[in-house]
Amino acid sequence: MAHIQVTEGMPGILGLIDFRPHTGNILQSLVHTLLRGESPLSAAERELIAAYVSEKNDCFFCANGHAAAARYLYKEDAPMVDEVLNNEDVSISEKLKTLLAIAGKVQNGGKAVTEQDIAAAKSLGATDIEIHDTVLIAAAFSMYNRYVDGLASYTPTRPEVYAKMGKILGHFGYIRISHDHVPEYLV
Amino acid sequence: MAHIQVTEGMPGILGLIDFRPHTGNILQSLVHTLLRGESPLSAAERELIAAYVSEKNDCFFCANGHAAAARYLYKEDAPMVDEVLNNEDVSISEKLKTLLAIAGKVQNGGKAVTEQDIAAAKSLGATDIEIHDTVLIAAAFSMYNRYVDGLASYTPTRPEVYAKMGKILGHFGYIRISHDHVPEYLV
Repeated sequence: MAHIQVTEGMPGILGLIDFRPHTGNILQSLVHTLLRGESPLSAAERELIAAYVSEKNDCFFCANGHAAAARYLYKEDAPMVDEVLNNEDVSISEKLKTLLAIAGKVQNGGKAVTEQDIAAAKSLGATDIEIHDTVLIAAAFSMYNRYVDGLASYTPTRPEVYAKMGKILGHFGYIRISHDHVPEYLV
Repeated sequence: MAHIQVTEGMPGILGLIDFRPHTGNILQSLVHTLLRGESPLSAAERELIAAYVSEKNDCFFCANGHAAAARYLYKEDAPMVDEVLNNEDVSISEKLKTLLAIAGKVQNGGKAVTEQDIAAAKSLGATDIEIHDTVLIAAAFSMYNRYVDGLASYTPTRPEVYAKMGKILGHFGYIRISHDHVPEYLV
């Protein structure tokens, strides 16, 4: 049970947004802009960074939701998402590896990021905007994860819930949609 | 020097907002709503929570800026801000102590908050909204601190910079103002 009285059955951050919409609407706008707005990083790469940080923060709801969205967006490369989350030697680009390393440092704390981490990313072609967006996504999920778990919000455990969530988030992003607008093949 | 090419001399998060305004504007809106929007917690109490978490995250810019804003807002009770930041036995209410304890747990990680932490706050009269706002402020500063330090943004060190910042933030909040609108006595 959540630490505060949220609407029953609204999972994860959704119950919290509903409880306090004046901040919830801004949090929703932030995640949509971060993960779907203009960026040199693809939506798939950004969902992967979000899932990676959420996994490190041990936030089941966020890690599983964003991993599912990343799998949906990576299409045939979906198995790579689980390789990243399991810290296996993965087939992603060397540049993305350096960005994930920076995201992992940010999860520990801002000061953990070193000049060497940044230089490694830049030497593989990472731009200032890519580095910025990586750091801000990792920082933002250090917030979202704490918000969701700090209030003990309701966490579904069935994998099919997350698979469906991943399709909807992958397709629509984080703008609220009514069920009527979800195409048949996504349901 | 910052890890990315931000406008020289723009301190802390200001240079980052200026570098990426499409996310920066949302971050600014979030902090203004969290610390100045409608809440049963006073602006002074919320600035204190922000400073407390930022101090624990060792973010010099955020800790000093929000401590200065808290001192401005607490007026004659300003010395209490430093007692809290120095973990001295302070004269704040027992209820606020339990909320700061929850904020400190959130800084460690969402799952660190226990049923007992929540029960202690509720037994002293803390409402669900007060607990919610405390958790979200602590989570949000776990983001802002990582953003500011993860990109090694420019950090002024002179105390008078923060004293002035505290007056302006205390008076206007986090909506951008032009210098023309700052009353003489604040300069």
